Amino acid sequence: MEKNILLTIEYDGSEFSGWQKQPDRPTVQGYLEKVLSDLLKREIALSGTSRTDAGVHARGQKASFRTDINIPTERLALVINNILCGHEKGAFALSPVKIVSAEERPLDFHARFDSKGKKYIYRIRNSKETDIFMRNYMYHVAAPLDMDAMKTAAGYIVGTHDFKSFEASGGTPRETTVRTIFDIDIKENIYRIDNVNDGDIGRDIELHVSGDGFLYNMVRIITGTLVDIGTGRIPLYDMKKILEAKNRSKAGHTAPPYGLYLAEVYY
Amino acid sequence: MEKNILLTIEYDGSEFSGWQKQPDRPTVQGYLEKVLSDLLKREIALSGTSRTDAGVHARGQKASFRTDINIPTERLALVINNILCGHEKGAFALSPVKIVSAEERPLDFHARFDSKGKKYIYRIRNSKETDIFMRNYMYHVAAPLDMDAMKTAAGYIVGTHDFKSFEASGGTPRETTVRTIFDIDIKENIYRIDNVNDGDIGRDIELHVSGDGFLYNMVRIITGTLVDIGTGRIPLYDMKKILEAKNRSKAGHTAPPYGLYLAEVYY
Repeated sequence: MEKNILLTIEYDGSEFSGWQKQPDRPTVQGYLEKVLSDLLKREIALSGTSRTDAGVHARGQKASFRTDINIPTERLALVINNILCGHEKGAFALSPVKIVSAEERPLDFHARFDSKGKKYIYRIRNSKETDIFMRNYMYHVAAPLDMDAMKTAAGYIVGTHDFKSFEASGGTPRETTVRTIFDIDIKENIYRIDNVNDGDIGRDIELHVSGDGFLYNMVRIITGTLVDIGTGRIPLYDMKKILEAKNRSKAGHTAPPYGLYLAEVYY
Repeated sequence: MEKNILLTIEYDGSEFSGWQKQPDRPTVQGYLEKVLSDLLKREIALSGTSRTDAGVHARGQKASFRTDINIPTERLALVINNILCGHEKGAFALSPVKIVSAEERPLDFHARFDSKGKKYIYRIRNSKETDIFMRNYMYHVAAPLDMDAMKTAAGYIVGTHDFKSFEASGGTPRETTVRTIFDIDIKENIYRIDNVNDGDIGRDIELHVSGDGFLYNMVRIITGTLVDIGTGRIPLYDMKKILEAKNRSKAGHTAPPYGLYLAEVYY
């Protein structure tokens, strides 16, 4: 009997050229489809929720596929993870991809079209010193950031707006550039970097951005603009003007891909 | 005028086949010698303190070289780091290698032979769930660890002993397998893993192991043995017997390279 299975997937984007399958490049979709097709002995096609770019990570990517296999759905995550870690060859290595869960959904459910929204997390390391071990996982900003200014500016763009100023060219063409941002929550965690002699005080910042949909590079341009406001390069009160301009060149820089995590998909 | 320059170096070992230069493999020594030779326009040979294995990291590797260049020594770290990050080509990317400092030493100083000891840090993630983002930086142990047993066992091997049971084959031949461990400090940091639904409690453990010298894979075998004691696979009071046996097969498993950091070199 045919089943529609929804996977929740984590991956380290630094090892892939993004989610979407491409010939001759390592992609998460291409890798997982191959593993699933080998396991289930039939061609498996995954529909993912979000086409994350090269270097972008996921804590909660969603992808569905249909199959008539009879591995119990609740066993599937473990079975796939064992293959990803090389258990079946007697090896054990942590994999850059992990299945967090597998659940059954109605046959007409679609991971992307039925999504009601998503949450992204953008991670910034705000410290004088770079941390080489975080270079693929956080955006390093050396200049001190004015967190109050960033929080106020973030408040201006929560809600329903035309986000054309925050859309990069090169994405899938869209009918409208109006989107609703449910919330931008800016969290910070201050710590002392012990291995640095001069007592550098570091700060890890996370932007939690949730909304009903996102334009191409939208979270990275929002983040870059908020960082530019935090360093004073863009005046705080320009945020409204940037929105109203509907012009990409008015917004700030595009923050790099490696700080971005697809955190959650809402249904 | 000839100078003897001592570098303190950090690197992410996951991108290299270890410190020591090898033909056709990416090594830290090979990479840095090329960068220095290009910069200084003469052949530079680095003497490193420790030949870290593939996957092993460094927070404080030391390496010295002689040169007659006249770049002020206090500017050297910045100049090299700019090259490593691609600044000179107008690019900017964090590099897996970073020069922490450059200092002048007497001409007869040797980074390895003059070393009085070293400190290694071994990082363990003790949690039910694996964290894919830490797979190159921490050893994941799923079984609960008895920290008190590990601390007591560690106490038995502090001091001067014949560590033959903790030496892997394949290293440089040594005159004696007697070494002095100054201290093993076991630190833990307990946290809640927020992105896991069932409220998994995680624990990051660091073993700080300092001594006058280390045999091949010694810290990784000590760590593996302490983990085996922590999980109960090896009884706590066997630690003394393991030391006395002077036989590698009596000790525990070898912990993987990616949890190990060369932290400090003492002179």
